[in-house]
Amino acid sequence: MGIKKIVLDVLKMLKGPTIIDVARRLLEIDGIKSVNIKVNEIDVETLTLTITIEGTDIDFNTIKNVIEDLGGVIHSVDEVTATKE
Amino acid sequence: MGIKKIVLDVLKMLKGPTIIDVARRLLEIDGIKSVNIKVNEIDVETLTLTITIEGTDIDFNTIKNVIEDLGGVIHSVDEVTATKE
Amino acid sequence: MGIKKIVLDVLKMLKGPTIIDVARRLLEIDGIKSVNIKVNEIDVETLTLTITIEGTDIDFNTIKNVIEDLGGVIHSVDEVTATKE
Amino acid sequence: MGIKKIVLDVLKMLKGPTIIDVARRLLEIDGIKSVNIKVNEIDVETLTLTITIEGTDIDFNTIKNVIEDLGGVIHSVDEVTATKE
Amino acid sequence: MGIKKIVLDVLKMLKGPTIIDVARRLLEIDGIKSVNIKVNEIDVETLTLTITIEGTDIDFNTIKNVIEDLGGVIHSVDEVTATKE
Amino acid sequence: MGIKKIVLDVLKMLKGPTIIDVARRLLEIDGIKSVNIKVNEIDVETLTLTITIEGTDIDFNTIKNVIEDLGGVIHSVDEVTATKE
Amino acid sequence: MGIKKIVLDVLKMLKGPTIIDVARRLLEIDGIKSVNIKVNEIDVETLTLTITIEGTDIDFNTIKNVIEDLGGVIHSVDEVTATKE
Repeated sequence: MGIKKIVLDVLKMLKGPTIIDVARRLLEIDGIKSVNIKVNEIDVETLTLTITIEGTDIDFNTIKNVIEDLGGVIHSVDEVTATKE
Repeated sequence: MGIKKIVLDVLKMLKGPTIIDVARRLLEIDGIKSVNIKVNEIDVETLTLTITIEGTDIDFNTIKNVIEDLGGVIHSVDEVTATKE
Repeated sequence: MGIKKIVLDVLKMLKGPTIIDVARRLLEIDGIKSVNIKVNEIDVETLTLTITIEGTDIDFNTIKNVIEDLGGVIHSVDEVTATKE
Repeated sequence: MGIKKIVLDVLKMLKGPTIIDVARRLLEIDGIKSVNIKVNEIDVETLTLTITIEGTDIDFNTIKNVIEDLGGVIHSVDEVTATKE
Repeated sequence: MGIKKIVLDVLKMLKGPTIIDVARRLLEIDGIKSVNIKVNEIDVETLTLTITIEGTDIDFNTIKNVIEDLGGVIHSVDEVTATKE
Repeated sequence: MGIKKIVLDVLKMLKGPTIIDVARRLLEIDGIKSVNIKVNEIDVETLTLTITIEGTDIDFNTIKNVIEDLGGVIHSVDEVTATKE
Repeated sequence: MGIKKIVLDVLKMLKGPTIIDVARRLLEIDGIKSVNIKVNEIDVETLTLTITIEGTDIDFNTIKNVIEDLGGVIHSVDEVTATKE
Protein backbone atom coordinates (compact mmCIF):
# COMPACT_ATOMS: atom_id res chain seq x y z
CA MET A 1 0.00 0.00 0.00
CA GLY A 2 1.41 3.42 -0.87
CA ILE A 3 1.89 6.25 -3.30
CA LYS A 4 2.90 4.83 -6.68
CA LYS A 5 3.01 7.97 -8.80
CA ILE A 6 3.27 11.71 -8.28
CA VAL A 7 3.27 14.47 -10.88
CA LEU A 8 4.77 17.77 -9.72
CA ASP A 9 4.84 21.22 -11.25
CA VAL A 10 8.26 22.63 -10.30
CA LEU A 11 9.98 25.97 -10.80
CA LYS A 12 13.82 25.69 -10.99
CA MET A 13 16.57 28.27 -11.37
CA LEU A 14 18.23 28.07 -14.79
CA LYS A 15 21.64 28.25 -13.08
CA GLY A 16 22.82 25.45 -10.81
CA PRO A 17 22.39 21.69 -11.32
CA THR A 18 20.93 20.52 -14.66
CA ILE A 19 17.68 18.54 -14.87
CA ILE A 20 19.93 15.52 -15.39
CA ASP A 21 21.46 16.07 -11.97
CA VAL A 22 17.95 16.47 -10.50
CA ALA A 23 16.84 13.19 -12.09
CA ARG A 24 19.89 11.33 -10.74
CA ARG A 25 19.47 12.73 -7.19
CA LEU A 26 15.72 11.93 -7.05
CA LEU A 27 16.44 8.39 -8.26
CA GLU A 28 18.68 7.80 -5.26
CA ILE A 29 15.67 8.11 -2.88
CA ASP A 30 14.33 4.78 -1.57
CA GLY A 31 11.05 3.60 -3.04
CA ILE A 32 11.52 5.47 -6.32
CA LYS A 33 11.84 3.43 -9.55
CA SER A 34 11.78 6.07 -12.29
CA VAL A 35 11.90 9.82 -12.74
CA ASN A 36 10.85 11.73 -15.84
CA ILE A 37 11.46 15.48 -16.14
CA LYS A 38 9.98 17.53 -18.97
CA VAL A 39 10.80 21.19 -19.57
CA ASN A 40 7.56 23.09 -20.25
CA GLU A 41 8.92 26.64 -20.29
CA ILE A 42 12.33 28.32 -20.42
CA ASP A 43 12.34 31.88 -19.03
CA VAL A 44 15.17 34.33 -18.50
CA GLU A 45 16.10 32.90 -15.12
CA THR A 46 13.89 29.88 -14.53
CA LEU A 47 12.73 26.56 -15.96
CA THR A 48 9.16 25.29 -15.44
CA LEU A 49 9.28 21.52 -15.16
CA THR A 50 6.81 18.66 -14.97
CA ILE A 51 8.40 15.93 -12.84
CA THR A 52 6.74 12.51 -12.93
CA ILE A 53 7.97 10.16 -10.23
CA GLU A 54 6.99 6.49 -10.04
CA GLY A 55 7.91 3.93 -7.43
CA THR A 56 6.74 1.34 -4.95
CA ASP A 57 6.20 3.71 -2.00
CA ILE A 58 6.99 7.36 -2.62
CA ASP A 59 7.67 9.69 0.30
CA PHE A 60 6.62 13.23 -0.61
CA ASN A 61 8.60 15.11 2.05
CA THR A 62 11.92 13.50 1.08
CA ILE A 63 11.27 14.49 -2.53
CA LYS A 64 10.40 18.03 -1.49
CA ASN A 65 13.71 18.39 0.40
CA VAL A 66 15.82 17.06 -2.48
CA ILE A 67 14.16 19.41 -4.99
CA GLU A 68 14.63 22.41 -2.70
CA ASP A 69 18.31 21.46 -2.13
CA LEU A 70 18.80 21.63 -5.91
CA GLY A 71 17.30 25.12 -6.25
CA GLY A 72 13.74 24.12 -7.11
CA VAL A 73 10.32 24.96 -5.66
CA ILE A 74 7.27 22.68 -5.87
CA HIS A 75 4.60 24.91 -7.37
CA SER A 76 1.86 22.24 -7.08
CA VAL A 77 1.14 18.52 -6.88
CA ASP A 78 -0.80 17.95 -10.11
CA GLU A 79 -1.54 14.25 -9.77
CA VAL A 80 -1.14 11.39 -7.33
CA THR A 81 -1.90 7.67 -7.62
CA ALA A 82 -2.04 5.30 -4.68
CA THR A 83 -2.74 1.57 -4.88
CA LYS A 84 -2.95 -1.34 -2.45
CA GLU A 85 -0.59 -3.68 -4.28
CA MET B 1 -21.61 -7.48 -8.12
CA GLY B 2 -20.90 -3.87 -7.20
CA ILE B 3 -19.53 -0.46 -8.03
CA LYS B 4 -16.09 -0.86 -9.64
CA LYS B 5 -15.27 2.72 -10.54
CA ILE B 6 -16.39 6.20 -9.53
CA VAL B 7 -15.20 9.53 -10.88
CA LEU B 8 -15.86 12.50 -8.61
CA ASP B 9 -15.57 16.24 -9.11
CA VAL B 10 -14.39 17.58 -5.74
CA LEU B 11 -13.73 21.03 -4.36
CA LYS B 12 -11.04 21.10 -1.63
CA MET B 13 -9.63 23.87 0.54
CA LEU B 14 -6.05 24.71 -0.42
CA LYS B 15 -5.11 24.65 3.27
CA GLY B 16 -5.27 21.45 5.28
CA PRO B 17 -4.26 17.96 4.18
CA THR B 18 -2.52 17.62 0.78
CA ILE B 19 -3.98 15.53 -2.05
CA ILE B 20 -1.39 12.94 -1.06
CA ASP B 21 -2.99 12.66 2.36
CA VAL B 22 -6.44 12.40 0.70
CA ALA B 23 -5.18 9.60 -1.57
CA ARG B 24 -3.72 7.66 1.39
CA ARG B 25 -6.91 8.02 3.51
CA LEU B 26 -9.23 6.94 0.67
CA LEU B 27 -7.00 3.93 -0.01
CA GLU B 28 -7.56 2.73 3.55
CA ILE B 29 -11.32 2.16 2.84
CA ASP B 30 -12.29 -1.49 2.26
CA GLY B 31 -13.09 -2.45 -1.30
CA ILE B 32 -10.88 0.26 -2.82
CA LYS B 33 -7.85 -0.82 -4.92
CA SER B 34 -6.57 2.44 -6.39
CA VAL B 35 -7.10 6.17 -6.13
CA ASN B 36 -6.01 8.77 -8.68
CA ILE B 37 -6.33 12.48 -7.95
CA LYS B 38 -5.78 15.12 -10.63
CA VAL B 39 -5.72 18.86 -9.95
CA ASN B 40 -7.82 20.63 -12.61
CA GLU B 41 -7.77 24.14 -11.18
CA ILE B 42 -5.88 26.04 -8.48
CA ASP B 43 -7.75 29.08 -7.13
CA VAL B 44 -6.89 31.48 -4.35
CA GLU B 45 -8.38 29.29 -1.66
CA THR B 46 -9.50 26.07 -3.32
CA LEU B 47 -8.40 23.19 -5.52
CA THR B 48 -10.77 21.57 -8.05
CA LEU B 49 -9.95 17.88 -8.23
CA THR B 50 -10.99 14.90 -10.32
CA ILE B 51 -10.80 11.83 -8.09
CA THR B 52 -10.99 8.44 -9.83
CA ILE B 53 -11.53 5.54 -7.46
CA GLU B 54 -11.41 1.90 -8.53
CA GLY B 55 -12.05 -1.18 -6.46
CA THR B 56 -13.95 -4.40 -6.06
CA ASP B 57 -17.01 -2.95 -4.29
CA ILE B 58 -16.95 0.76 -3.64
CA ASP B 59 -19.19 2.28 -0.96
CA PHE B 60 -20.09 5.85 -1.90
CA ASN B 61 -21.19 7.09 1.53
CA THR B 62 -17.94 6.02 3.21
CA ILE B 63 -16.00 7.91 0.53
CA LYS B 64 -18.20 10.96 0.97
CA ASN B 65 -17.50 11.04 4.74
CA VAL B 66 -13.72 10.68 4.30
CA ILE B 67 -13.58 13.49 1.74
CA GLU B 68 -15.65 15.79 3.94
CA ASP B 69 -13.43 14.99 6.97
CA LEU B 70 -10.44 16.19 4.91
CA GLY B 71 -12.04 19.52 3.98
CA GLY B 72 -13.49 18.55 0.62
CA VAL B 73 -16.96 18.72 -0.93
CA ILE B 74 -18.22 16.37 -3.64
CA HIS B 75 -19.43 18.73 -6.36
CA SER B 76 -20.75 15.91 -8.57
CA VAL B 77 -20.45 12.22 -9.43
CA ASP B 78 -19.25 12.40 -13.03
CA GLU B 79 -19.07 8.70 -13.84
CA VAL B 80 -19.88 5.33 -12.29
CA THR B 81 -19.26 1.79 -13.52
CA ALA B 82 -20.88 -1.29 -12.00
CA THR B 83 -20.28 -4.86 -13.12
CA LYS B 84 -21.47 -8.31 -12.08
CA GLU B 85 -18.04 -9.94 -11.79
CA MET C 1 -27.90 -14.01 -30.60
CA GLY C 2 -29.01 -10.70 -29.04
CA ILE C 3 -28.36 -7.12 -28.12
CA LYS C 4 -24.89 -6.84 -26.55
CA LYS C 5 -24.59 -3.10 -26.09
CA ILE C 6 -26.89 -0.09 -25.87
CA VAL C 7 -25.97 3.56 -25.42
CA LEU C 8 -28.77 5.76 -24.12
CA ASP C 9 -29.13 9.52 -23.75
CA VAL C 10 -31.12 9.99 -20.55
CA LEU C 11 -32.54 12.99 -18.73
CA LYS C 12 -32.78 12.49 -14.94
CA MET C 13 -34.11 14.68 -12.13
CA LEU C 14 -31.30 15.99 -9.93
CA LYS C 15 -33.33 15.02 -6.86
CA GLY C 16 -34.12 11.40 -6.08
CA PRO C 17 -31.81 8.40 -6.47
CA THR C 18 -28.14 9.10 -7.37
CA ILE C 19 -26.56 7.75 -10.54
CA ILE C 20 -24.94 5.17 -8.28
CA ASP C 21 -28.38 3.89 -7.32
CA VAL C 22 -29.35 3.83 -11.02
CA ALA C 23 -26.22 1.83 -11.87
CA ARG C 24 -26.93 -0.71 -9.11
CA ARG C 25 -30.62 -1.16 -10.12
CA LEU C 26 -29.81 -1.60 -13.82
CA LEU C 27 -27.14 -4.15 -12.95
CA GLU C 28 -29.78 -6.30 -11.25
CA ILE C 29 -31.56 -6.91 -14.59
CA ASP C 30 -30.90 -10.34 -16.16
CA GLY C 31 -28.57 -10.38 -19.17
CA ILE C 32 -26.71 -7.21 -18.13
CA LYS C 33 -22.99 -7.48 -17.30
CA SER C 34 -21.90 -3.87 -16.88
CA VAL C 35 -23.34 -0.39 -16.65
CA ASN C 36 -21.42 2.87 -17.15
CA ILE C 37 -23.06 6.22 -16.47
CA LYS C 38 -21.42 9.50 -17.45
CA VAL C 39 -22.79 12.92 -16.51
CA ASN C 40 -22.65 15.19 -19.59
CA GLU C 41 -24.52 18.20 -18.21
CA ILE C 42 -25.71 19.43 -14.83
CA ASP C 43 -28.64 21.86 -15.00
CA VAL C 44 -30.69 23.50 -12.26
CA GLU C 45 -33.05 20.57 -11.94
CA THR C 46 -31.79 17.84 -14.23
CA LEU C 47 -28.78 15.73 -15.17
CA THR C 48 -28.10 14.68 -18.78
CA LEU C 49 -26.54 11.23 -18.73
CA THR C 50 -24.96 8.85 -21.23
CA ILE C 51 -25.70 5.33 -20.03
CA THR C 52 -23.74 2.52 -21.68
CA ILE C 53 -25.11 -0.94 -20.94
CA GLU C 54 -23.36 -4.14 -21.97
CA GLY C 55 -24.51 -7.71 -21.51
CA THR C 56 -25.22 -11.05 -23.09
CA ASP C 57 -28.84 -10.33 -24.10
CA ILE C 58 -30.18 -6.92 -23.20
CA ASP C 59 -33.95 -6.32 -23.00
CA PHE C 60 -34.72 -2.70 -23.87
CA ASN C 61 -38.21 -2.50 -22.34
CA THR C 62 -37.06 -3.74 -18.93
CA ILE C 63 -34.34 -1.09 -18.95
CA LYS C 64 -36.83 1.58 -19.95
CA ASN C 65 -39.11 0.71 -17.00
CA VAL C 66 -36.27 0.73 -14.46
CA ILE C 67 -35.00 4.13 -15.65
CA GLU C 68 -38.49 5.63 -15.54
CA ASP C 69 -39.05 4.18 -12.01
CA LEU C 70 -35.93 6.08 -10.91
CA GLY C 71 -37.11 9.43 -12.32
CA GLY C 72 -35.38 9.29 -15.66
CA VAL C 73 -36.56 9.64 -19.28
CA ILE C 74 -34.83 7.99 -22.27
CA HIS C 75 -34.24 10.91 -24.62
CA SER C 76 -32.80 8.68 -27.40
CA VAL C 77 -31.09 5.39 -28.15
CA ASP C 78 -27.75 6.61 -29.52
CA GLU C 79 -26.14 3.27 -30.35
CA VAL C 80 -26.94 -0.43 -30.39
CA THR C 81 -24.78 -3.47 -31.12
CA ALA C 82 -26.15 -6.94 -31.75
CA THR C 83 -24.07 -10.04 -32.45
CA LYS C 84 -24.73 -13.73 -33.13
CA GLU C 85 -22.35 -15.13 -30.53
CA MET D 1 -13.99 -14.69 -50.47
CA GLY D 2 -16.66 -12.01 -49.89
CA ILE D 3 -17.80 -8.78 -48.40
CA LYS D 4 -16.77 -8.66 -44.73
CA LYS D 5 -17.86 -5.17 -43.76
CA ILE D 6 -20.24 -2.51 -45.02
CA VAL D 7 -20.89 0.94 -43.60
CA LEU D 8 -24.19 2.51 -44.64
CA ASP D 9 -25.63 6.00 -44.23
CA VAL D 10 -29.35 5.45 -43.65
CA LEU D 11 -32.33 7.76 -43.21
CA LYS D 12 -35.10 6.24 -41.04
CA MET D 13 -38.53 7.49 -39.98
CA LEU D 14 -38.63 8.37 -36.28
CA LYS D 15 -41.94 6.48 -36.01
CA GLY D 16 -42.10 2.74 -36.57
CA PRO D 17 -39.58 0.10 -35.40
CA THR D 18 -36.75 1.29 -33.10
CA ILE D 19 -33.09 0.95 -34.07
CA ILE D 20 -33.06 -2.03 -31.70
CA ASP D 21 -35.64 -3.76 -33.87
CA VAL D 22 -33.57 -2.88 -36.97
CA ALA D 23 -30.44 -4.36 -35.38
CA ARG D 24 -32.26 -7.58 -34.47
CA ARG D 25 -33.81 -8.02 -37.95
CA LEU D 26 -30.48 -7.39 -39.76
CA LEU D 27 -28.76 -9.90 -37.47
CA GLU D 28 -31.16 -12.60 -38.65
CA ILE D 29 -29.73 -12.41 -42.22
CA ASP D 30 -27.31 -15.24 -43.13
CA GLY D 31 -23.63 -14.31 -43.26
CA ILE D 32 -23.97 -11.41 -40.82
CA LYS D 33 -22.11 -11.63 -37.47
CA SER D 34 -22.61 -8.19 -35.95
CA VAL D 35 -24.57 -5.01 -36.48
CA ASN D 36 -23.78 -1.61 -34.95
CA ILE D 37 -26.17 1.32 -35.36
CA LYS D 38 -25.22 4.85 -34.35
CA VAL D 39 -27.64 7.78 -34.38
CA ASN D 40 -25.89 10.80 -35.96
CA GLU D 41 -28.82 13.18 -36.15
CA ILE D 42 -32.36 13.38 -34.75
CA ASP D 43 -34.71 15.57 -36.80
CA VAL D 44 -38.43 16.27 -36.43
CA GLU D 45 -39.46 13.19 -38.36
CA THR D 46 -36.29 11.27 -39.19
CA LEU D 47 -33.15 9.69 -37.74
CA THR D 48 -29.85 9.71 -39.65
CA LEU D 49 -28.01 6.49 -38.85
CA THR D 50 -24.61 4.98 -39.53
CA ILE D 51 -25.07 1.21 -39.74
CA THR D 52 -21.90 -0.90 -39.64
CA ILE D 53 -22.46 -4.52 -40.62
CA GLU D 54 -19.78 -7.19 -40.32
CA GLY D 55 -19.98 -10.82 -41.35
CA THR D 56 -18.44 -13.66 -43.29
CA ASP D 57 -20.22 -12.98 -46.60
CA ILE D 58 -22.60 -10.02 -46.64
CA ASP D 59 -25.30 -9.78 -49.31
CA PHE D 60 -26.09 -6.11 -50.02
CA ASN D 61 -29.48 -6.59 -51.68
CA THR D 62 -30.92 -8.61 -48.79
CA ILE D 63 -29.80 -5.86 -46.41
CA LYS D 64 -31.36 -3.20 -48.62
CA ASN D 65 -34.74 -4.99 -48.60
CA VAL D 66 -34.76 -5.44 -44.80
CA ILE D 67 -33.92 -1.77 -44.20
CA GLU D 68 -36.62 -0.62 -46.60
CA ASP D 69 -39.17 -2.97 -44.97
CA LEU D 70 -38.45 -1.22 -41.65
CA GLY D 71 -39.03 2.28 -43.03
CA GLY D 72 -35.44 3.17 -43.86
CA VAL D 73 -33.68 4.38 -47.03
CA ILE D 74 -29.99 3.72 -47.81
CA HIS D 75 -28.63 7.19 -48.52
CA SER D 76 -25.14 5.90 -49.44
CA VAL D 77 -22.66 3.06 -49.01
CA ASP D 78 -19.82 4.84 -47.19
CA GLU D 79 -17.37 1.98 -46.90
CA VAL D 80 -16.92 -1.64 -47.96
CA THR D 81 -14.23 -4.19 -47.15
CA ALA D 82 -13.78 -7.46 -49.02
CA THR D 83 -11.16 -10.10 -48.26
CA LYS D 84 -10.18 -13.51 -49.61
CA GLU D 85 -10.17 -15.37 -46.31
CA MET E 1 9.52 -8.98 -52.79
CA GLY E 2 6.69 -6.78 -54.08
CA ILE E 3 4.07 -4.14 -53.61
CA LYS E 4 2.08 -4.93 -50.44
CA LYS E 5 -0.20 -1.93 -50.23
CA ILE E 6 -1.50 0.79 -52.52
CA VAL E 7 -3.81 3.68 -51.69
CA LEU E 8 -5.60 5.21 -54.67
CA ASP E 9 -7.69 8.34 -55.08
CA VAL E 10 -10.38 7.36 -57.60
CA LEU E 11 -13.20 9.25 -59.31
CA LYS E 12 -16.18 6.99 -60.21
CA MET E 13 -19.48 7.66 -61.99
CA LEU E 14 -22.43 7.52 -59.60
CA LYS E 15 -24.30 5.37 -62.16
CA GLY E 16 -23.06 1.91 -63.08
CA PRO E 17 -21.60 -0.74 -60.72
CA THR E 18 -21.73 -0.01 -56.96
CA ILE E 19 -18.58 0.21 -54.84
CA ILE E 20 -19.52 -3.28 -53.66
CA ASP E 21 -19.18 -4.56 -57.21
CA VAL E 22 -15.83 -2.73 -57.51
CA ALA E 23 -14.60 -4.35 -54.29
CA ARG E 24 -15.62 -7.83 -55.47
CA ARG E 25 -13.99 -7.43 -58.94
CA LEU E 26 -10.71 -6.09 -57.49
CA LEU E 27 -10.61 -8.97 -55.02
CA GLU E 28 -10.63 -11.44 -57.91
CA ILE E 29 -7.19 -10.20 -59.08
CA ASP E 30 -4.25 -12.48 -58.16
CA GLY E 31 -2.00 -11.28 -55.35
CA ILE E 32 -4.72 -9.17 -53.71
CA LYS E 33 -5.87 -10.14 -50.18
CA SER E 34 -8.15 -7.29 -49.17
CA VAL E 35 -9.84 -4.23 -50.61
CA ASN E 36 -11.29 -1.32 -48.64
CA ILE E 37 -13.25 1.43 -50.37
CA LYS E 38 -14.26 4.61 -48.57
CA VAL E 39 -16.54 7.25 -50.08
CA ASN E 40 -15.02 10.71 -49.40
CA GLU E 41 -17.39 12.82 -51.49
CA ILE E 42 -20.73 12.38 -53.25
CA ASP E 43 -21.32 14.85 -56.10
CA VAL E 44 -24.17 15.15 -58.60
CA GLU E 45 -22.68 12.61 -60.96
CA THR E 46 -19.54 11.24 -59.32
CA LEU E 47 -18.16 9.58 -56.20
CA THR E 48 -14.66 10.36 -54.91
CA LEU E 49 -13.23 7.19 -53.39
CA THR E 50 -10.17 6.18 -51.42
CA ILE E 51 -9.36 2.59 -52.36
CA THR E 52 -6.86 0.77 -50.14
CA ILE E 53 -5.61 -2.48 -51.61
CA GLU E 54 -3.42 -4.93 -49.72
CA GLY E 55 -1.90 -8.15 -50.96
CA THR E 56 1.21 -10.26 -51.37
CA ASP E 57 2.28 -8.84 -54.77
CA ILE E 58 0.03 -6.17 -56.24
CA ASP E 59 0.13 -5.43 -59.97
CA PHE E 60 -0.80 -1.78 -60.58
CA ASN E 61 -1.68 -2.04 -64.28
CA THR E 62 -4.18 -4.88 -63.74
CA ILE E 63 -5.86 -2.79 -61.06
CA LYS E 64 -5.93 0.25 -63.33
CA ASN E 65 -7.70 -1.74 -66.08
CA VAL E 66 -10.32 -3.19 -63.74
CA ILE E 67 -11.14 0.23 -62.27
CA GLU E 68 -11.44 1.79 -65.73
CA ASP E 69 -13.68 -1.12 -66.89
CA LEU E 70 -16.03 -0.26 -64.01
CA GLY E 71 -16.31 3.43 -64.93
CA GLY E 72 -13.61 4.78 -62.63
CA VAL E 73 -10.50 6.92 -63.17
CA ILE E 74 -7.38 6.78 -60.96
CA HIS E 75 -6.85 10.40 -59.97
CA SER E 76 -3.61 9.68 -58.07
CA VAL E 77 -1.61 7.02 -56.24
CA ASP E 78 -1.51 8.47 -52.73
CA GLU E 79 0.58 5.82 -51.02
CA VAL E 80 2.54 2.67 -51.80
CA THR E 81 4.35 0.19 -49.55
CA ALA E 82 6.81 -2.42 -50.82
CA THR E 83 8.63 -4.95 -48.67
CA LYS E 84 11.10 -7.79 -49.20
CA GLU E 85 9.20 -10.47 -47.31
CA MET F 1 25.02 -1.15 -35.81
CA GLY F 2 23.58 1.12 -38.50
CA ILE F 3 20.86 3.34 -39.86
CA LYS F 4 17.51 1.58 -39.43
CA LYS F 5 15.11 4.24 -40.66
CA ILE F 6 15.24 7.38 -42.78
CA VAL F 7 12.42 9.75 -43.64
CA LEU F 8 13.02 11.89 -46.72
CA ASP F 9 11.17 14.86 -48.17
CA VAL F 10 11.48 14.40 -51.96
CA LEU F 11 10.40 16.46 -54.95
CA LYS F 12 9.67 14.32 -58.06
CA MET F 13 8.66 15.21 -61.62
CA LEU F 14 5.06 14.20 -62.33
CA LYS F 15 6.23 12.68 -65.65
CA GLY F 16 8.55 9.69 -65.72
CA PRO F 17 8.46 6.62 -63.43
CA THR F 18 5.47 6.30 -61.02
CA ILE F 19 5.95 6.18 -57.26
CA ILE F 20 5.36 2.43 -57.62
CA ASP F 21 8.45 2.18 -59.81
CA VAL F 22 10.38 4.26 -57.25
CA ALA F 23 9.28 1.96 -54.43
CA ARG F 24 10.34 -1.17 -56.40
CA ARG F 25 13.77 0.29 -57.32
CA LEU F 26 14.54 1.42 -53.75
CA LEU F 27 13.54 -2.01 -52.45
CA GLU F 28 16.22 -3.61 -54.62
CA ILE F 29 18.99 -1.85 -52.60
CA ASP F 30 20.83 -4.07 -50.09
CA GLY F 31 19.95 -3.50 -46.43
CA ILE F 32 16.48 -2.13 -47.18
CA LYS F 33 13.45 -4.08 -45.90
CA SER F 34 10.52 -1.78 -46.64
CA VAL F 35 9.71 1.42 -48.46
CA ASN F 36 6.63 3.59 -47.93
CA ILE F 37 5.90 6.54 -50.21
CA LYS F 38 3.16 9.04 -49.44
CA VAL F 39 2.10 11.82 -51.80
CA ASN F 40 1.75 15.07 -49.81
CA GLU F 41 1.18 17.49 -52.68
CA ILE F 42 0.37 17.28 -56.39
CA ASP F 43 1.43 20.38 -58.37
CA VAL F 44 1.29 21.14 -62.09
CA GLU F 45 4.60 19.45 -62.78
CA THR F 46 5.80 17.91 -59.53
CA LEU F 47 4.88 15.59 -56.68
CA THR F 48 6.02 16.24 -53.11
CA LEU F 49 6.64 12.89 -51.43
CA THR F 50 7.47 11.62 -47.97
CA ILE F 51 9.56 8.49 -48.40
CA THR F 52 10.06 6.32 -45.30
CA ILE F 53 12.73 3.69 -45.69
CA GLU F 54 13.41 0.98 -43.13
CA GLY F 55 16.08 -1.67 -43.15
CA THR F 56 18.92 -3.35 -41.32
CA ASP F 57 21.72 -1.01 -42.53
CA ILE F 58 20.64 1.79 -44.85
CA ASP F 59 23.20 3.51 -47.08
CA PHE F 60 22.13 7.11 -47.72
CA ASN F 61 24.28 7.79 -50.80
CA THR F 62 22.97 4.75 -52.67
CA ILE F 63 19.43 5.90 -51.98
CA LYS F 64 20.26 9.41 -53.13
CA ASN F 65 21.58 8.13 -56.47
CA VAL F 66 18.55 5.91 -57.12
CA ILE F 67 16.11 8.74 -56.38
CA GLU F 68 18.02 11.14 -58.65
CA ASP F 69 18.13 8.50 -61.45
CA LEU F 70 14.32 8.38 -61.27
CA GLY F 71 13.87 12.15 -61.63
CA GLY F 72 13.64 13.03 -57.94
CA VAL F 73 15.51 15.46 -55.67
CA ILE F 74 15.97 14.96 -51.91
CA HIS F 75 14.70 18.21 -50.45
CA SER F 76 15.63 17.25 -46.86
CA VAL F 77 16.29 14.37 -44.48
CA ASP F 78 13.47 14.81 -41.99
CA GLU F 79 14.26 11.96 -39.62
CA VAL F 80 16.87 9.29 -39.03
CA THR F 81 17.05 6.43 -36.51
CA ALA F 82 20.21 4.44 -35.79
CA THR F 83 20.44 1.55 -33.34
CA LYS F 84 23.15 -0.84 -32.17
CA GLU F 85 21.23 -4.09 -32.73
CA MET G 1 20.77 2.86 -12.25
CA GLY G 2 21.23 5.68 -14.76
CA ILE G 3 19.90 7.99 -17.41
CA LYS G 4 17.87 5.94 -19.90
CA LYS G 5 16.55 8.67 -22.18
CA ILE G 6 17.38 12.26 -23.06
CA VAL G 7 15.58 14.58 -25.46
CA LEU G 8 17.66 17.51 -26.69
CA ASP G 9 16.78 20.63 -28.67
CA VAL G 10 19.82 21.23 -30.89
CA LEU G 11 20.77 23.94 -33.36
CA LYS G 12 23.09 22.68 -36.18
CA MET G 13 24.76 24.42 -39.12
CA LEU G 14 23.21 23.37 -42.43
CA LYS G 15 26.73 22.89 -43.83
CA GLY G 16 29.02 20.20 -42.50
CA PRO G 17 28.09 16.64 -41.49
CA THR G 18 24.50 15.47 -42.24
CA ILE G 19 22.12 14.37 -39.50
CA ILE G 20 22.93 10.82 -40.63
CA ASP G 21 26.58 11.40 -39.72
CA VAL G 22 25.47 12.85 -36.35
CA ALA G 23 23.29 9.79 -35.68
CA ARG G 24 26.17 7.40 -36.51
CA ARG G 25 28.69 9.29 -34.33
CA LEU G 26 26.34 9.48 -31.32
CA LEU G 27 25.61 5.76 -31.65
CA GLU G 28 29.31 5.00 -31.20
CA ILE G 29 29.20 6.34 -27.60
CA ASP G 30 29.12 3.65 -24.88
CA GLY G 31 25.79 3.16 -23.14
CA ILE G 32 23.73 4.42 -26.09
CA LYS G 33 21.35 1.98 -27.82
CA SER G 34 19.40 4.18 -30.23
CA VAL G 35 19.40 7.71 -31.62
CA ASN G 36 16.49 9.42 -33.35
CA ILE G 37 16.92 12.81 -34.99
CA LYS G 38 13.97 14.82 -36.27
CA VAL G 39 14.29 18.05 -38.25
CA ASN G 40 11.82 20.61 -36.84
CA GLU G 41 12.91 23.66 -38.82
CA ILE G 42 15.12 24.40 -41.82
CA ASP G 43 16.45 27.99 -41.91
CA VAL G 44 18.86 29.68 -44.30
CA GLU G 45 21.93 28.50 -42.41
CA THR G 46 20.74 26.24 -39.63
CA LEU G 47 18.66 23.16 -38.80
CA THR G 48 16.67 22.92 -35.56
CA LEU G 49 16.70 19.31 -34.43
CA THR G 50 15.06 17.19 -31.75
CA ILE G 51 17.49 14.44 -30.81
CA THR G 52 16.11 11.57 -28.73
CA ILE G 53 18.79 9.33 -27.27
CA GLU G 54 18.05 6.09 -25.46
CA GLY G 55 20.45 3.74 -23.77
CA THR G 56 21.40 1.83 -20.65
CA ASP G 57 23.48 4.61 -19.00
CA ILE G 58 23.76 7.84 -20.96
CA ASP G 59 26.59 10.28 -20.23
CA PHE G 60 25.46 13.81 -21.01
CA ASN G 61 28.90 15.47 -21.26
CA THR G 62 30.17 12.96 -23.82
CA ILE G 63 27.08 13.63 -25.92
CA LYS G 64 27.57 17.37 -25.59
CA ASN G 65 31.17 17.13 -26.87
CA VAL G 66 30.24 14.96 -29.86
CA ILE G 67 27.43 17.31 -30.89
CA GLU G 68 29.69 20.36 -30.59
CA ASP G 69 32.43 18.61 -32.63
CA LEU G 70 29.87 18.16 -35.43
CA GLY G 71 28.90 21.85 -35.51
CA GLY G 72 25.87 21.69 -33.23
CA VAL G 73 24.84 23.53 -30.06
CA ILE G 74 22.54 22.07 -27.37
CA HIS G 75 19.86 24.69 -27.00
CA SER G 76 18.10 22.87 -24.13
CA VAL G 77 17.54 19.50 -22.47
CA ASP G 78 13.80 19.04 -22.96
CA GLU G 79 13.32 15.72 -21.23
CA VAL G 80 15.24 13.18 -19.18
CA THR G 81 14.25 9.77 -17.81
CA ALA G 82 16.26 7.88 -15.20
CA THR G 83 15.38 4.45 -13.82
CA LYS G 84 16.89 2.03 -11.32
CA GLU G 85 16.90 -1.06 -13.54
